[in-house]
Amino acid sequence: MISPMNPAQLREKVVQWRRDFHRHPELGYREYRTAARVCDVLAAIPGCTVRVGRDVMDPAALMNPPSAEEFAAARSEAIAHGANPAWVARMGDGLTGVVAEFNFVRPGPTLAFRVDMDALPILESAEAAHAPAREGFASTHAGRMHACGHDGHTAIGLGLASLAPAHAAQWGGKLKIVFQPAEEGCCGAKAMVAAGVFADVDALVCGHLGTGATRAGLIACGTDAFLATTKFDVEYRGRAAHAGMAPQDGRNALLTAATFALQLHALPRHAGGETRANAGTLHAGSGRNVIADRAIVEAEVRGTTAAVNRFMTDEAFRVARAAAEMFGVTCDIRIVGEAGSAPCDAALKEIVRAAAKSLPATHEIVDTLPLGGSEDATLMMLAVQARGGTATYLQIGTALPAGHHHPRFDIEESALWHGVELYAAIAERVLGV
Amino acid sequence: MISPMNPAQLREKVVQWRRDFHRHPELGYREYRTAARVCDVLAAIPGCTVRVGRDVMDPAALMNPPSAEEFAAARSEAIAHGANPAWVARMGDGLTGVVAEFNFVRPGPTLAFRVDMDALPILESAEAAHAPAREGFASTHAGRMHACGHDGHTAIGLGLASLAPAHAAQWGGKLKIVFQPAEEGCCGAKAMVAAGVFADVDALVCGHLGTGATRAGLIACGTDAFLATTKFDVEYRGRAAHAGMAPQDGRNALLTAATFALQLHALPRHAGGETRANAGTLHAGSGRNVIADRAIVEAEVRGTTAAVNRFMTDEAFRVARAAAEMFGVTCDIRIVGEAGSAPCDAALKEIVRAAAKSLPATHEIVDTLPLGGSEDATLMMLAVQARGGTATYLQIGTALPAGHHHPRFDIEESALWHGVELYAAIAERVLGV
Amino acid sequence: MISPMNPAQLREKVVQWRRDFHRHPELGYREYRTAARVCDVLAAIPGCTVRVGRDVMDPAALMNPPSAEEFAAARSEAIAHGANPAWVARMGDGLTGVVAEFNFVRPGPTLAFRVDMDALPILESAEAAHAPAREGFASTHAGRMHACGHDGHTAIGLGLASLAPAHAAQWGGKLKIVFQPAEEGCCGAKAMVAAGVFADVDALVCGHLGTGATRAGLIACGTDAFLATTKFDVEYRGRAAHAGMAPQDGRNALLTAATFALQLHALPRHAGGETRANAGTLHAGSGRNVIADRAIVEAEVRGTTAAVNRFMTDEAFRVARAAAEMFGVTCDIRIVGEAGSAPCDAALKEIVRAAAKSLPATHEIVDTLPLGGSEDATLMMLAVQARGGTATYLQIGTALPAGHHHPRFDIEESALWHGVELYAAIAERVLGV
Amino acid sequence: MISPMNPAQLREKVVQWRRDFHRHPELGYREYRTAARVCDVLAAIPGCTVRVGRDVMDPAALMNPPSAEEFAAARSEAIAHGANPAWVARMGDGLTGVVAEFNFVRPGPTLAFRVDMDALPILESAEAAHAPAREGFASTHAGRMHACGHDGHTAIGLGLASLAPAHAAQWGGKLKIVFQPAEEGCCGAKAMVAAGVFADVDALVCGHLGTGATRAGLIACGTDAFLATTKFDVEYRGRAAHAGMAPQDGRNALLTAATFALQLHALPRHAGGETRANAGTLHAGSGRNVIADRAIVEAEVRGTTAAVNRFMTDEAFRVARAAAEMFGVTCDIRIVGEAGSAPCDAALKEIVRAAAKSLPATHEIVDTLPLGGSEDATLMMLAVQARGGTATYLQIGTALPAGHHHPRFDIEESALWHGVELYAAIAERVLGV
Repeated sequence: MISPMNPAQLREKVVQWRRDFHRHPELGYREYRTAARVCDVLAAIPGCTVRVGRDVMDPAALMNPPSAEEFAAARSEAIAHGANPAWVARMGDGLTGVVAEFNFVRPGPTLAFRVDMDALPILESAEAAHAPAREGFASTHAGRMHACGHDGHTAIGLGLASLAPAHAAQWGGKLKIVFQPAEEGCCGAKAMVAAGVFADVDALVCGHLGTGATRAGLIACGTDAFLATTKFDVEYRGRAAHAGMAPQDGRNALLTAATFALQLHALPRHAGGETRANAGTLHAGSGRNVIADRAIVEAEVRGTTAAVNRFMTDEAFRVARAAAEMFGVTCDIRIVGEAGSAPCDAALKEIVRAAAKSLPATHEIVDTLPLGGSEDATLMMLAVQARGGTATYLQIGTALPAGHHHPRFDIEESALWHGVELYAAIAERVLGV
Repeated sequence: MISPMNPAQLREKVVQWRRDFHRHPELGYREYRTAARVCDVLAAIPGCTVRVGRDVMDPAALMNPPSAEEFAAARSEAIAHGANPAWVARMGDGLTGVVAEFNFVRPGPTLAFRVDMDALPILESAEAAHAPAREGFASTHAGRMHACGHDGHTAIGLGLASLAPAHAAQWGGKLKIVFQPAEEGCCGAKAMVAAGVFADVDALVCGHLGTGATRAGLIACGTDAFLATTKFDVEYRGRAAHAGMAPQDGRNALLTAATFALQLHALPRHAGGETRANAGTLHAGSGRNVIADRAIVEAEVRGTTAAVNRFMTDEAFRVARAAAEMFGVTCDIRIVGEAGSAPCDAALKEIVRAAAKSLPATHEIVDTLPLGGSEDATLMMLAVQARGGTATYLQIGTALPAGHHHPRFDIEESALWHGVELYAAIAERVLGV
Repeated sequence: MISPMNPAQLREKVVQWRRDFHRHPELGYREYRTAARVCDVLAAIPGCTVRVGRDVMDPAALMNPPSAEEFAAARSEAIAHGANPAWVARMGDGLTGVVAEFNFVRPGPTLAFRVDMDALPILESAEAAHAPAREGFASTHAGRMHACGHDGHTAIGLGLASLAPAHAAQWGGKLKIVFQPAEEGCCGAKAMVAAGVFADVDALVCGHLGTGATRAGLIACGTDAFLATTKFDVEYRGRAAHAGMAPQDGRNALLTAATFALQLHALPRHAGGETRANAGTLHAGSGRNVIADRAIVEAEVRGTTAAVNRFMTDEAFRVARAAAEMFGVTCDIRIVGEAGSAPCDAALKEIVRAAAKSLPATHEIVDTLPLGGSEDATLMMLAVQARGGTATYLQIGTALPAGHHHPRFDIEESALWHGVELYAAIAERVLGV
Repeated sequence: MISPMNPAQLREKVVQWRRDFHRHPELGYREYRTAARVCDVLAAIPGCTVRVGRDVMDPAALMNPPSAEEFAAARSEAIAHGANPAWVARMGDGLTGVVAEFNFVRPGPTLAFRVDMDALPILESAEAAHAPAREGFASTHAGRMHACGHDGHTAIGLGLASLAPAHAAQWGGKLKIVFQPAEEGCCGAKAMVAAGVFADVDALVCGHLGTGATRAGLIACGTDAFLATTKFDVEYRGRAAHAGMAPQDGRNALLTAATFALQLHALPRHAGGETRANAGTLHAGSGRNVIADRAIVEAEVRGTTAAVNRFMTDEAFRVARAAAEMFGVTCDIRIVGEAGSAPCDAALKEIVRAAAKSLPATHEIVDTLPLGGSEDATLMMLAVQARGGTATYLQIGTALPAGHHHPRFDIEESALWHGVELYAAIAERVLGV
């Protein structure tokens, strides 16, 4: 058990956690060191039950996991960088989610917060203008970076957990803090939902640093303009042939993929909402003078509603398969990521508003800011809403020297404590008895 | 019975027949006046049996016939322009083929000649430089023209028939002169083959004025570089929708047809021979702001061998159907024309060579000239060859003021009598006993 | 001069006008009979100046006019059906717009109302369930129909004009009633704007029967979700060649058009608003075995803002031209229709609201209903707003047995008088002194 | 100087050379070890002048050389595997061609033989059925293999050079043996032609083991059905953008490449000869949710004549550039390989025939066999023919356990000596005085 910290100490600790995570960015499903650190901290908090591995993630619902070799390498690396091997062992292949649970004595609702832990395959800036570089906590793994603030989210989650024991007497019901892996690509949420993590949740608060809230002190109580999305790979296998001597013997996977890509972008617009379609990468063929026998396309579609995204997904798959028919090749479609579109509930937004208002760090409150992108937290929100609960996706303001996913992305560290206090104030309002 | 003509009179008559046919061009399957004239002439020749209608064409094998209305209009027009209604009545809907048969007393082989009768949808030149215009035998039907020499072929066939009685004593076996409708588009031969017209033929001579033989006096004993071909229509039916208000409700037949057209041209080359593919016409849509619900494409493929053409046909149909799948529309493919590729038999070419050599009109003899196009006479040649017979496709030289299918196409009329004499000399060598 | 009518008589008259126009539907720019009738009625109204022809339409700005032959035929038909030849003569080729002007003695602002007059190329239903058929005022021109309510709009315009003299003493400034031709296809507005019709207008009220207002008694004070649009034709000219004998000599206009159509639909989505793209019709080629030397595509793009529509237009034209480059053919792009997107001004909507509220026929008032389509009245609205004036586009409720542009489209005739009264009440509030 | 060998010793030596080259396969322009070995052997032959580097290759005409890093690595590897550093130094970056020259005392013509030295990026079979694997001379470089017989060609060249001194007294004129690098991909010949290697050649003999001559003892005096070819890379650079948040800001290089690939395959057929087109590889994009800003396509076209290949090249480049226009991206086209189509001269074929006839190893002689592929030796042949000389491309028979470019490709080693004797017998007939 750690000794209780006073707020100033904890505030300092949250910054240290964030910097530690920032130094050790890990890609989706491979957050072994991050998750093990989270477990270490949580295990030392009185009254906190730590759930990990199969308890909180259904391996059958893992979307787009890396290979066994990549898992093994990630585990070795994590342990080499200080991860507790006992925790790592419990996380198996990609079950890197963690849930902190506080069961209070008095009855009450179940309130969950969701934070995400994964980093991005981006080479971090080494310029002095970039604070992590200047102050010595930049990524120690070339080509990986916390460029979306998840390091901060995880630190806020630990800050909230650290504050919980002090409220044990005043709070009732249950508090769950969900540390999600593999948010990028909209992969990781599904397996946590499938494992039942949200089956008892009455209110769910998700959140993000920055996004639309680009001024310190600004809190958005909710978010809209989520784009529901389906991410998928299409792999074509045809038949190679010499392009000069026997072109008729080939089954051209390159042209199949090219046709798919073009027709994917030519899918009809939808009067029911905005749509998106993208073939982001295409790799095909083995040699200039050979009819290409293999091609792979990484693609995605989006829509402002689940129905519109469903339309786009169905049409995209139809086009992918018909292209294969057209060229006489085989087609394998793999869904590798999914997010929905969920409304933020007014009641919960009101609670966020009241909580935000109570904090001196809050300078400005808005009801809703748009996301304009995709987030698999929506799957968790939809799960909670489906059982009659409420959910919101708030935004915590911070000035941003560069946009999300940029090599010079960074947050104002004052936003971390603003986040911890906001989450605690929300818990106070939901669980306080 | 007509009184026997001396050669000079017949030579004159052949020119008159050609000019009469030239004046009255009729499109494929609608050669009612031409065929009725042919019947009238043949019926007056001693010993000539005239077969017409169902006797010589299988209605079930008609490729791409026009509508019942077009047939009725063509019959009325033909009768109005002097066709014998009795013959017209026997020709029903498109059974406009005629076969002249001479059964000689002495035994011998069956020798067939094939001539074709149909004209083209071309507006004939009215320029004075164009002999038919200058000399008053240009087309009397605006937009139709004998621009491929079939008027001359038919006249040569009648000339040969007129000469036959004089040889009845010296010839044995059987002489058949086959007057084929609807050669353009490779439509009409199939129904004559299906009716059994070639089931007893031991030697078949087909021929063409001009083509590669572009000097008067030149005879080519055979032809190669036939392109086997399949002509087909593809019709797509989708679902209309307002392009602004509900684009997602449409099923776009225009884009389907566009995709088919592009992919048809992108079919692989074939190392087994040359190929061709063409989407010649495409008509789609009903309005600018409506998702097109209907499209029709007139297309064709070709190949230097039947196998290569088969490959192209199979691939084209696959692409046509897959395009429909891609856009969720229905697809109807109709074969409307077919020709094969047939070799010219050396033995028969030798007979043609000897016959040509015997004529003063012959200035030059070559073994083979290329066609570089398609001809459904090949189906007849293949039928004869399949039963062990021999076939050739000769070419009769004539200077051409303009190429085939041109509004100023014309032949030297001296080639007509050269043709009649050549055919008679061939018959002499095959049937002479 | 007609004798003043009491309201009941005028109400009856408005219905008669509408039925007369319904019986004689005329396509865009060919509304000679309709416009001549409008002129006849207006000329008989005291104090009404009738402007027509070049006074109100700039011939240089006519978008997509029909041919001289079609104009001549339309004029003849109109006169045969009772149009006053003197008015027809002044309308020249397509200058069928009419403006009624009332200049009041007292000073005041200029208020304009816009109504449209053209019909659609739709075959009207003859079913008894369809009121015009049952009651004997269905279209007398097979294949043309007032299926969008413009007959009613024109009748309302005449009703308002008929009421104006009675208010001459109480109103100041100027009242203009603009009868626009060729709204369908977004063609006619531009020439009226170019002629300066709106150069003195301070407030402009446009309106539509039905659209989103599908209950009798409902008034929408304004409209949003206009889709700015550009309608255009793309014509490609290549080079014909025989598809079998010389495919390499062709310049394939059919494939060019097919490529353009596909790539038009594949233009990127835009985060700034919704977009649309449609190649509605495509006609190419002259024969199956000929490389197509000509193709024409009727196309359109749309966007929820003028900027987004501009983006789509620029990209569409780029694609159209690049397709021509790709196939070595020439490309001719003709803009044939345009509409913008204009906001409805709050101040004018408030006046509409007050006016609507004052009428017993009004059962329900809403601020704004969406259009979801395109309207070239927006060009007029933008012109007025550009000079500092205000504009709105209201909707007059009516139940609809079938949607706009449907063969059974019809309106409730009670809506006509509701419209006349509403327009008069608006004029009262704007011009009343 | 090596001591003269008797034929049996030399025959054995030729096999050893071939096996040594087989063990050390080197890719195009990186044949440092092979070429250095060739130089070592040649330098020891009396009367042989060894030309290498800039003397025999024009660096400005190198087609598709690898990077400076790859050159450096290849040199190091070659030296590590026994290459003489002095020769390697003279070969610079890719100037790995070698020419052996024998200037005889008596006057006479200049006769050249061309052999090629490069290997392929293929993983050689390790199966016991594969003789090199079984007998221990398989490739020692995983992923590289002599799978086209160039190891044998080089050994034959050395065998011929070794025989030359013995004929010095009987031969006149000049004998050149040209060891060419980088034949695969049709890259290396151009630089040797540009360096003037063929400027004095009166007769040129090129040859290949196997190809169409798939029986031991068969000699083809010439080759036809060369496909002239142009190999080229197309690189597109566009602009990246987030596919969800700002698709309109992207310039899509992936779709550009896909369009190019499809339209390349849809280029028209040519009545002047057979054509080929292939986009063999396509790599585009950096992430699923990013508009791809870069794409690269490896492509080629071919034609049975230089004119037809020129047509295809021009059309392909037009399409490549127009695709860039269509998507607003930049386009860089780099020609990386070229071959022509050259006739084999009858006079030289007759000499080959006589030479072949004189050898007991010859069982069968044919005039010509088809290649059906591309060979940049044609550039050398065309250079010789352009100055009035003669050229042929003969084929030396060998049974093949697997086709060219197959992981189990192998030759009968008896064909090596047959080749040496044939080349010497040809030299005897051309240079013998």
